[in-house]
Amino acid sequence: MPVPVSGFSKKSKQEKIEWLVHNYFNDNEDALITLKQYWNNNTRLQELHDDFTENTISNYYLPFGIAPNFKINGRMYTIPMVIEESSVIAAASNAAKFWLDRGGFNTEVISTIKNGQVHIDYFGNKELIFKFFADVKPALLVSISDIEKNMKVRGGGLLDIELIDTTEALPGYFQLHCTFETLDAMGANFINSCLEEIAITFEQKAASHPEFSKNSTTPKVVLSILSNYVPECMVRASVRCAVEELTENGTDGETFARDFVRAVDIARTEIRRAVTHNKGIMNGIDSVILATGNDFRAVEAGIHAFAAKEGKYTSLTQANVEDGIFTFSIEIPLALGTVGGLTGLHPLVKFALQLLHNPSAQELMGIAAVAGLAQNFAAIRSLVTTGIQKGHMKMHLMNILNQLEATSDEKEKAIQHFTKNTVSHIAAVNFIEKLRR
Amino acid sequence: MPVPVSGFSKKSKQEKIEWLVHNYFNDNEDALITLKQYWNNNTRLQELHDDFTENTISNYYLPFGIAPNFKINGRMYTIPMVIEESSVIAAASNAAKFWLDRGGFNTEVISTIKNGQVHIDYFGNKELIFKFFADVKPALLVSISDIEKNMKVRGGGLLDIELIDTTEALPGYFQLHCTFETLDAMGANFINSCLEEIAITFEQKAASHPEFSKNSTTPKVVLSILSNYVPECMVRASVRCAVEELTENGTDGETFARDFVRAVDIARTEIRRAVTHNKGIMNGIDSVILATGNDFRAVEAGIHAFAAKEGKYTSLTQANVEDGIFTFSIEIPLALGTVGGLTGLHPLVKFALQLLHNPSAQELMGIAAVAGLAQNFAAIRSLVTTGIQKGHMKMHLMNILNQLEATSDEKEKAIQHFTKNTVSHIAAVNFIEKLRR
Repeated sequence: MPVPVSGFSKKSKQEKIEWLVHNYFNDNEDALITLKQYWNNNTRLQELHDDFTENTISNYYLPFGIAPNFKINGRMYTIPMVIEESSVIAAASNAAKFWLDRGGFNTEVISTIKNGQVHIDYFGNKELIFKFFADVKPALLVSISDIEKNMKVRGGGLLDIELIDTTEALPGYFQLHCTFETLDAMGANFINSCLEEIAITFEQKAASHPEFSKNSTTPKVVLSILSNYVPECMVRASVRCAVEELTENGTDGETFARDFVRAVDIARTEIRRAVTHNKGIMNGIDSVILATGNDFRAVEAGIHAFAAKEGKYTSLTQANVEDGIFTFSIEIPLALGTVGGLTGLHPLVKFALQLLHNPSAQELMGIAAVAGLAQNFAAIRSLVTTGIQKGHMKMHLMNILNQLEATSDEKEKAIQHFTKNTVSHIAAVNFIEKLRR
Repeated sequence: MPVPVSGFSKKSKQEKIEWLVHNYFNDNEDALITLKQYWNNNTRLQELHDDFTENTISNYYLPFGIAPNFKINGRMYTIPMVIEESSVIAAASNAAKFWLDRGGFNTEVISTIKNGQVHIDYFGNKELIFKFFADVKPALLVSISDIEKNMKVRGGGLLDIELIDTTEALPGYFQLHCTFETLDAMGANFINSCLEEIAITFEQKAASHPEFSKNSTTPKVVLSILSNYVPECMVRASVRCAVEELTENGTDGETFARDFVRAVDIARTEIRRAVTHNKGIMNGIDSVILATGNDFRAVEAGIHAFAAKEGKYTSLTQANVEDGIFTFSIEIPLALGTVGGLTGLHPLVKFALQLLHNPSAQELMGIAAVAGLAQNFAAIRSLVTTGIQKGHMKMHLMNILNQLEATSDEKEKAIQHFTKNTVSHIAAVNFIEKLRR
């Protein structure tokens, strides 16, 4: 049984690995070989990647792929996508091609305000704290001037601080709700640094405020942090064309549009469908988020909570037909950065941003939303026509063959065979076994 | 301006890259070098990774790190974590160490049922479709016996099919709600294959059913797909200890427990806090999901929708003190696999599963939930004591130094300096600039 370890973080990479292989792999050489085969030959590059986080022992490969033929606001894009799931990149590329001939995608940034809170406990007289806040607000604003300096030069910074009474939901709970413009930065470190400074100043001023001590009800900061719920940082992406333009491969446009709209309506109605519908959207969005060095957990949390904002979890996309025009759109909160964080560090992130014509954060919001919309379009198109398994299993065939350790020759024969036959795990196994007999 | 491309997916990897570098990088050699420096020397290994998805042109590195000292249900674990964000792995390790001395983590799988739906349009007499369903249900069950065969041998398979009237929410909308037990497989392909087969049989039987044609109201399948909303596939993880055992570094246990519980209560109350609170939980969970080859988009969607199930998005964790005992717990839906998908393909996934003592899917549910709970514990502990920026920026220091292309010598001096001084981006820049003068 493995034993606890002390001072692990202080050990060198080599020592950490030795400890691991000894305690968890019975000193088996193979474990070491598995880790090492992923190390980069370039020591400096490897160190760069090791330093991203703590206790790094190897590089986890995710495929870095590309989906060409996206026309967004009239400009051509090839979208970099980082994802392990098969058929996502193929689906995005198909949707891009489909809409390329029908005017492409349009995007619009609706707003770019980020937010964070200083959460406060205060059980005293309400008028008193509001009066106190009005008095100290100028000092709170001044307290972050050093932190804000660079951001202000570029035109961003703190926008406002409001004191909000949240005591109805939780007795004694108030918040300083702070809003920010962080331009091309995601801004998490900037916002958190501002909030912690505001909190310190607020508490110091409160501690020396005679009215509070007189009533022995001094407000106390519980915690200070940015919010990943960003419904004031919104982007919209859409496609539209005449219903008859949707005609393709024997399906007439009207039937397709009707089935498509119905599928989206079902996702708007039923949570069990909505979750998977939105999961497919996130396949597209997260692929771009990862490729551009943004934080997918932040994006996921903000978007899914937004999907439930009316009290019922629902579809992020909308589809309708009006006056013979089919429109399909998405509107989502997205707080992204194209400077700071990993964007200046990870060579493939720099590559991805260059591929995307070095976008501003606002442009990147549009591109990510388009990737989500394209993904959803492709998924619904498959679901209401052939079903998804046919395409998905075709894309997945190579994984199955690799699992069976098929040779190049066997692979070629299998691909040939399955152009005309339905792929399933068992069918692939049977085919390869027959070949090998 | 880049031009559209035809037949892209048919091109070889080499041809795709040539097209990309020509059209988006002005044939700049550097772009090619950036992609190639991440290729693996082992051609066969590289091909394996290329085949995971489509149009792969390079490997995107995410750090593969480890967090030791997790005691879960009495057994020691070192948890593999794949994440690009600094301080997540350090926080997990700290929480593990903290609870190691206080009894460790406990987990409990509450249920393991997965689900999927065949979504149906039907505008006729309701009694008629329910009667029809009762008649054809045996045929629906039989229709998947081939697909189900292997799963049944192992003790899993389809559990039941129900016809549900959802017409109140959306006129004419019914569903075949199907439940499954997929054992150690995540089961997405299995469930989708079953559903598509059930849908075909249902539609065929309906088309030849005289009562429907007589009333010209034959039910029609809109789409069939699994659901990533899995509230019947639940796991719980928890820690508990006497309040006085929480005493540490000068903070007394009672104050800590009170502040901690208050912080969780705020996250239960305020959506802006809940989203970031849960985002931190997902930092831990997704790190394990990625390392073990599972699908984080599926997990994210299911969990966040679950967080909003009562009509208001809220905290996934709960904390309380009762009779002097502090309890902190999480209860989440998690549909995971330890066989199938990438688990048998990605060498580092195999490594991760081996490191975790080759867990069953149920055991992995517990481990992932523990990683989320540990992450949340560490985050709240920082937030209610020192704030998060101090620790986070210390962890982030190396990234800043790498961005400044600091030498080993400069790095050493900077680390020394910042053990006693507050890290900020500007402070690090100033320090290095001074050194270089």
